[in-house]
Amino acid sequence: MTSRPDPEIIHEGRFIRFQKVGDWEFIQRNNCTGIVIIVPMTDDQQVIFVEQYRPPVDKFVIEFPAGLLNDRADYPDESIESGAKRELMEETGYRAEQIIPLLDGPISAGSSADTVTMVRAAGLTKVGTGGGDETESIRIHEVKLSDVDAWLEHQRQQGFMIEPKIYSGLYFLKSYNSSLPNKVNL
Amino acid sequence: MTSRPDPEIIHEGRFIRFQKVGDWEFIQRNNCTGIVIIVPMTDDQQVIFVEQYRPPVDKFVIEFPAGLLNDRADYPDESIESGAKRELMEETGYRAEQIIPLLDGPISAGSSADTVTMVRAAGLTKVGTGGGDETESIRIHEVKLSDVDAWLEHQRQQGFMIEPKIYSGLYFLKSYNSSLPNKVNL
Repeated sequence: MTSRPDPEIIHEGRFIRFQKVGDWEFIQRNNCTGIVIIVPMTDDQQVIFVEQYRPPVDKFVIEFPAGLLNDRADYPDESIESGAKRELMEETGYRAEQIIPLLDGPISAGSSADTVTMVRAAGLTKVGTGGGDETESIRIHEVKLSDVDAWLEHQRQQGFMIEPKIYSGLYFLKSYNSSLPNKVNL
Repeated sequence: MTSRPDPEIIHEGRFIRFQKVGDWEFIQRNNCTGIVIIVPMTDDQQVIFVEQYRPPVDKFVIEFPAGLLNDRADYPDESIESGAKRELMEETGYRAEQIIPLLDGPISAGSSADTVTMVRAAGLTKVGTGGGDETESIRIHEVKLSDVDAWLEHQRQQGFMIEPKIYSGLYFLKSYNSSLPNKVNL
């Protein structure tokens, strides 16, 4: 709908580029083609979360599984669907039959050029242990949908950070929008 | 729950600092003490959104009103509540009687040290025109809660980006979590 001048690159990092347009400072990942957040729920309504230490905030954070698309040479030309399935498997050990788009939008419209796609993963079968790739140490939590609010509040009281987009995913999981694809396709 | 070495500062910008811990690159705002997102709904269930051009993503984005705390000398020692009321007034022209905490958590746990607090604003009275401060150009949208999903989908089809945390706010507004303060206090 509009366009701006190309950004001036202030610092090119290994993973993240710091740049400017006029006075506006913001980052952009330089090692991937996209970011996907996966909202997994089993057929018996167990919602799957991951817990991991996050150096930027220096805390253990409860999140939905997520990852970068095309960030490594061993899986080139990755689509959102294949990347979502790969990340879900790596982090949780679940294979998904269906990947259903829920939303896409900016990660942080004031400070990043990156956008994220959120998908629902359904038709889940546990086939591995999860835990992440060699650089990650991920703990898996399976929580009944009806218990999720109380469980998240308990985790918060224990000192975990809760990723705010968890509630975006739950909005869709609880299917309050009757026109959503997760109502139509599942 | 844990602690890491102090980050190495790679670039100190005017608004954002680019830094590293080990191999991990991430940013942190250096011009404020916090970030607040305000979820405003009138007594007759009109949800208030803002629309503005966002240079990092080069698009017009639909969001909840939001802003930085203590980012200017003319409002020192600002609390979350006073900052939320100020930003809501600046951006939408609404005065809020009540500011109710909904959540806090990381903006982007893999790339930023910043956290955000989301609050509900209630007891609203329109007293000004809104539109933002002298650096902003904000358009206001008031949408009935029951029409929000269809309205957001229409905006998306028109080319607007939808900020994903809008759905986090809607999760709370629709009161799907019966233990929430917005159920207790309003």
